[in-house]
Amino acid sequence: MTPEAWDYLQGGAEDEITLAENVAAFRRRRFVPRVLVDVASANTAATLLGTRVGLPIGVAPVAAQGLADPDGEVATARAAAESGALFCLSTVSSRSIEEVASAVPDAPRWFQLYVNEDRRFTRRLVERAEAGGFRAIVLTVDLPVLGYREREKRRGWELDVRLGNFEGEAGRAAREEGEEEGAVDLDRLLDMRSVAMTWDIVGALRGWTSLPLVVKGILSGDDARLAVERGIDAVWVSNHGGRQLDRSIASLDALGTVAAAVDGRAEVYVDGGLRRGSDALVARALGARAAFTGRPFVAALGAGGEAGVRRAFAILREELERAMALLGTPTLDHVRPEHLAPG
Amino acid sequence: MTPEAWDYLQGGAEDEITLAENVAAFRRRRFVPRVLVDVASANTAATLLGTRVGLPIGVAPVAAQGLADPDGEVATARAAAESGALFCLSTVSSRSIEEVASAVPDAPRWFQLYVNEDRRFTRRLVERAEAGGFRAIVLTVDLPVLGYREREKRRGWELDVRLGNFEGEAGRAAREEGEEEGAVDLDRLLDMRSVAMTWDIVGALRGWTSLPLVVKGILSGDDARLAVERGIDAVWVSNHGGRQLDRSIASLDALGTVAAAVDGRAEVYVDGGLRRGSDALVARALGARAAFTGRPFVAALGAGGEAGVRRAFAILREELERAMALLGTPTLDHVRPEHLAPG
Amino acid sequence: MTPEAWDYLQGGAEDEITLAENVAAFRRRRFVPRVLVDVASANTAATLLGTRVGLPIGVAPVAAQGLADPDGEVATARAAAESGALFCLSTVSSRSIEEVASAVPDAPRWFQLYVNEDRRFTRRLVERAEAGGFRAIVLTVDLPVLGYREREKRRGWELDVRLGNFEGEAGRAAREEGEEEGAVDLDRLLDMRSVAMTWDIVGALRGWTSLPLVVKGILSGDDARLAVERGIDAVWVSNHGGRQLDRSIASLDALGTVAAAVDGRAEVYVDGGLRRGSDALVARALGARAAFTGRPFVAALGAGGEAGVRRAFAILREELERAMALLGTPTLDHVRPEHLAPG
Amino acid sequence: MTPEAWDYLQGGAEDEITLAENVAAFRRRRFVPRVLVDVASANTAATLLGTRVGLPIGVAPVAAQGLADPDGEVATARAAAESGALFCLSTVSSRSIEEVASAVPDAPRWFQLYVNEDRRFTRRLVERAEAGGFRAIVLTVDLPVLGYREREKRRGWELDVRLGNFEGEAGRAAREEGEEEGAVDLDRLLDMRSVAMTWDIVGALRGWTSLPLVVKGILSGDDARLAVERGIDAVWVSNHGGRQLDRSIASLDALGTVAAAVDGRAEVYVDGGLRRGSDALVARALGARAAFTGRPFVAALGAGGEAGVRRAFAILREELERAMALLGTPTLDHVRPEHLAPG
Repeated sequence: MTPEAWDYLQGGAEDEITLAENVAAFRRRRFVPRVLVDVASANTAATLLGTRVGLPIGVAPVAAQGLADPDGEVATARAAAESGALFCLSTVSSRSIEEVASAVPDAPRWFQLYVNEDRRFTRRLVERAEAGGFRAIVLTVDLPVLGYREREKRRGWELDVRLGNFEGEAGRAAREEGEEEGAVDLDRLLDMRSVAMTWDIVGALRGWTSLPLVVKGILSGDDARLAVERGIDAVWVSNHGGRQLDRSIASLDALGTVAAAVDGRAEVYVDGGLRRGSDALVARALGARAAFTGRPFVAALGAGGEAGVRRAFAILREELERAMALLGTPTLDHVRPEHLAPG
Repeated sequence: MTPEAWDYLQGGAEDEITLAENVAAFRRRRFVPRVLVDVASANTAATLLGTRVGLPIGVAPVAAQGLADPDGEVATARAAAESGALFCLSTVSSRSIEEVASAVPDAPRWFQLYVNEDRRFTRRLVERAEAGGFRAIVLTVDLPVLGYREREKRRGWELDVRLGNFEGEAGRAAREEGEEEGAVDLDRLLDMRSVAMTWDIVGALRGWTSLPLVVKGILSGDDARLAVERGIDAVWVSNHGGRQLDRSIASLDALGTVAAAVDGRAEVYVDGGLRRGSDALVARALGARAAFTGRPFVAALGAGGEAGVRRAFAILREELERAMALLGTPTLDHVRPEHLAPG
Repeated sequence: MTPEAWDYLQGGAEDEITLAENVAAFRRRRFVPRVLVDVASANTAATLLGTRVGLPIGVAPVAAQGLADPDGEVATARAAAESGALFCLSTVSSRSIEEVASAVPDAPRWFQLYVNEDRRFTRRLVERAEAGGFRAIVLTVDLPVLGYREREKRRGWELDVRLGNFEGEAGRAAREEGEEEGAVDLDRLLDMRSVAMTWDIVGALRGWTSLPLVVKGILSGDDARLAVERGIDAVWVSNHGGRQLDRSIASLDALGTVAAAVDGRAEVYVDGGLRRGSDALVARALGARAAFTGRPFVAALGAGGEAGVRRAFAILREELERAMALLGTPTLDHVRPEHLAPG
Repeated sequence: MTPEAWDYLQGGAEDEITLAENVAAFRRRRFVPRVLVDVASANTAATLLGTRVGLPIGVAPVAAQGLADPDGEVATARAAAESGALFCLSTVSSRSIEEVASAVPDAPRWFQLYVNEDRRFTRRLVERAEAGGFRAIVLTVDLPVLGYREREKRRGWELDVRLGNFEGEAGRAAREEGEEEGAVDLDRLLDMRSVAMTWDIVGALRGWTSLPLVVKGILSGDDARLAVERGIDAVWVSNHGGRQLDRSIASLDALGTVAAAVDGRAEVYVDGGLRRGSDALVARALGARAAFTGRPFVAALGAGGEAGVRRAFAILREELERAMALLGTPTLDHVRPEHLAPG
């Protein structure tokens, strides 16, 4: 992986305070294990929007994974499938919806959606995802504009990879007049200020697809309530991995408030800062049915390709299994708020 | 900039605890962004004492900017004017009231006032400011005596720059018998202990000028209430950039108490520790209509002159604009206490 | 001591957060000494399950002390006996129950029990301990599976010492078909997942022995209550020295809750993080009748054999005696919660 | 000053946690200055047990100041006298009661008393102090036994200076059979365990002298109440500069509780951690009429003799004067709890 790619994939906004806080928020929590619980039949399975997965740790949508490995998202998705984990594909992936769908046709996959200026193109993305067997649409709502990422500003670096979903016939609509195929300006593409996207987008999405809808990027209880009132199927607590508004609250620190606001009316997930298998238990105790993470998988992808990601999953699973036994929680449903020390 | 000048402009009192705390207080706060808000028409404008400015970040009064650049305050004021920002001129500026007034005749400017032992000279300063088109008098109240600044004591350094407002005919009154023109002893000049200045000064000022009055250097709710009762137009929360009483509470940490005491009866500002455009949103959420900062602009002035200050403003504006979009607050009036995490 | 042995004996699980927190939890506490108390007749004696010991600091069960010194547990037990302190022998000790019993026949000793897959072997251990004059059975309940210890994973190191209790006729039952004498696979031995051990084990133990029962590895008040309801004689607060579930609450931080739950119905001890004689007073003020520690003694054992452990005890006793005089507590019964600052 | 002397004079007990905390406790506090207060006539004077002193910072009793300078306590006392400050002489001073008395006959001085095994010798000390014009007896109550000072243990160092009060006729009673004059074993001398000193000592002291009595070494509110009930004139909050029980609460952190318990029925002082003139204001706001410090003066004594101590006082006074002006408190009586931020 080039230093530029590393900076893009691993860096965050401004002073990277939120990036660091996401990890620190997990590390601050303390377990209160229960003992003499029968953990002989412990298992790590979870059900997410009706889909059974082998463990409650999924691959968060990370853009342009071709920066880490030539196979990009295809490699990551394969490793996730072999590990029994959920994979979430980014709109701005290196490999297209169709490539990933044909690589892991039967694996549980979700599609992360950026709403583009061009509504027709956005709708086409949703339809392609549904056609490709993706099982939910994960609408990202915390990117009205790209965050202020200084690593890139300092390097003067520009993303120079193909973005699979913007190529060929299907991608034509997203390109500016005269732009080369694949040479999409990410900054323009992702600057949503002109779109004036509001909660009305939920209604539009419901008209385009029958897939479950997940709203990703919620940090406040009030927004969680709005999402539930709009009939969203799941709320995904996230600060975009510290890449958007620096000094946003750590996603784990926002989780409790959001889960309380949702109050069981939708599923709740979290991403940002998960580095150990046991972190999934922390997230669960605070109200998240599953936790997602991106950077560890992308680092593993860069270091060892598909096998690297499989290895990352194996470590996380091993850590999680041991932690469940040690916490006295043979299944995820056994994990309660009381398994964390207060404060 | 010489090391001595750097120490003077960037240093603080004693152990520089408050200097560091001012910055840390901003960095400790956490945003709780709202999503799916229409931020297409976001703008950063603010109205301060009736004057419309392009952004809620102003240039705090910093003494002797000639230490950083030959053009001193004229350069800074020009850059502020071009950036649509408010400029506040110090009594002990390198360039005089009249020089700044003629450099940026139409730009929003305020004049910071030190009350001198010689009341006639003080009154003349106010009259010169009003005549020069400055739109408010900012009375500094936290300098009954200079703070204990060890950097200077260790170097044995003495300020050796012209102080424009003390030169020529107008400045004669401020000089001791036999003192050379411009060779003012700042320590004597600013030692207010003999003045026994009290809240009565407000009445005197009202008699000298019809300009709005701002009291700068308030950290307690009780003093804020006194200021409001005296009819002050705005309260400026400040610990003088950590240059006066070390271990004074960080200005941002005092802001909430002061704003609650003012209770809407006057405008409230804050300075001390602002380093990012998003800091203006932190300040706003805690009750400040605008935030001021000095050191970043003076550092920029030393590094790049007027263009350097313009660049500093451009960065702050860009950061602020992105942060407003990401926080879900298209205007400053949208920013609420709830946009910060409690505690 | 080899680096591998050091890592095994001094290391902890995963990021060693709990390992560090155990120590930090003691160091965070602050004493509030009382003065002008008659401390002339101060003494450090304590009574633990009816046995009088000279000081309230015992040797926690540490596996495989042959890694630190050829005499292993025999040396440690001798030093403890000479120091008037309680010694707790591990099931997975280098030297057998019988060797330790014959080395210090009259000294107060407890036996730490791991429940093995083979119930007959487990029962034999208990019977051997009782026959050998051990005065209590300390049932470890926080090891349903070994913790995730990265130091060992990185080194690829395997424990290569004899485990005395698994040798000879008595140890045969614990060995797999074809395993050499003494070459026990600790990972298999200690993986209790298949055992499905629950609170029912207490009833089984009561049927095997009339010795007092201590449950070691309690961190939650609810488990402490369950232990008391099952008639356990003492609750030992422990996170296994940070070797099991990383990020478990520091044992000292769990002590208050556990002691409140026990409410005088059983004795309470604590281990994890004790490094100074005065730590025993911290533990006492929070509700522990005695504190145990392992790493300091094992380090002393490696550095100076039996004499090293005696020296460690001498230092701890000297520190404790001075601290008791300085705290104004001539006996341990004088130590009250009020001797610690709140919070 | 030799490294050994430095370690003795500047070091603390065990891990020196309390030593560091004493300083940190001052540095954590934050001022809330008041403005536009008339501070023209500010002054730093205080009245301590009826004696007017020029500033509320006194010299705490430090043993064996001959380690820092040949003139020892005579030099320190002279500098204090010239600075208008209170000097407190230690029982275990290098220079005797009589030497100090004749050096500064008219200066305000107090005598710190260790109660010796030999009651007649102790009584003689009190009588000598009264005869020498010392104006109060400061009874140290936090040294039932010397603290555990590892710097000295590591060096194997023994105090090797004359102790003036134990020489000649007057000192004979304190020496063991066969001990040389001046060669007193400090460890034996100060080990009070055999003395079994209790609150009854107060009654004995009242019988020996009509001087005011100060009890030094109080950290708990309960002990403060006992002192008041015994008719003590002043309570001196202290942890002996972190030299006795390590992890004792920082004296400043104990001050509020003690002052509340005293409730105006006696004067309250504090020592431990004062390093800046403004620290006296922190102490005052929390209820102490005066603050004492030792290490800064002894360091100054070692660096510059009597002139060094005078310089230390000059700096402290300058810092204090500026801080009082900046805090808006023209006299010490103006300092209120509200001048510190809560928490």
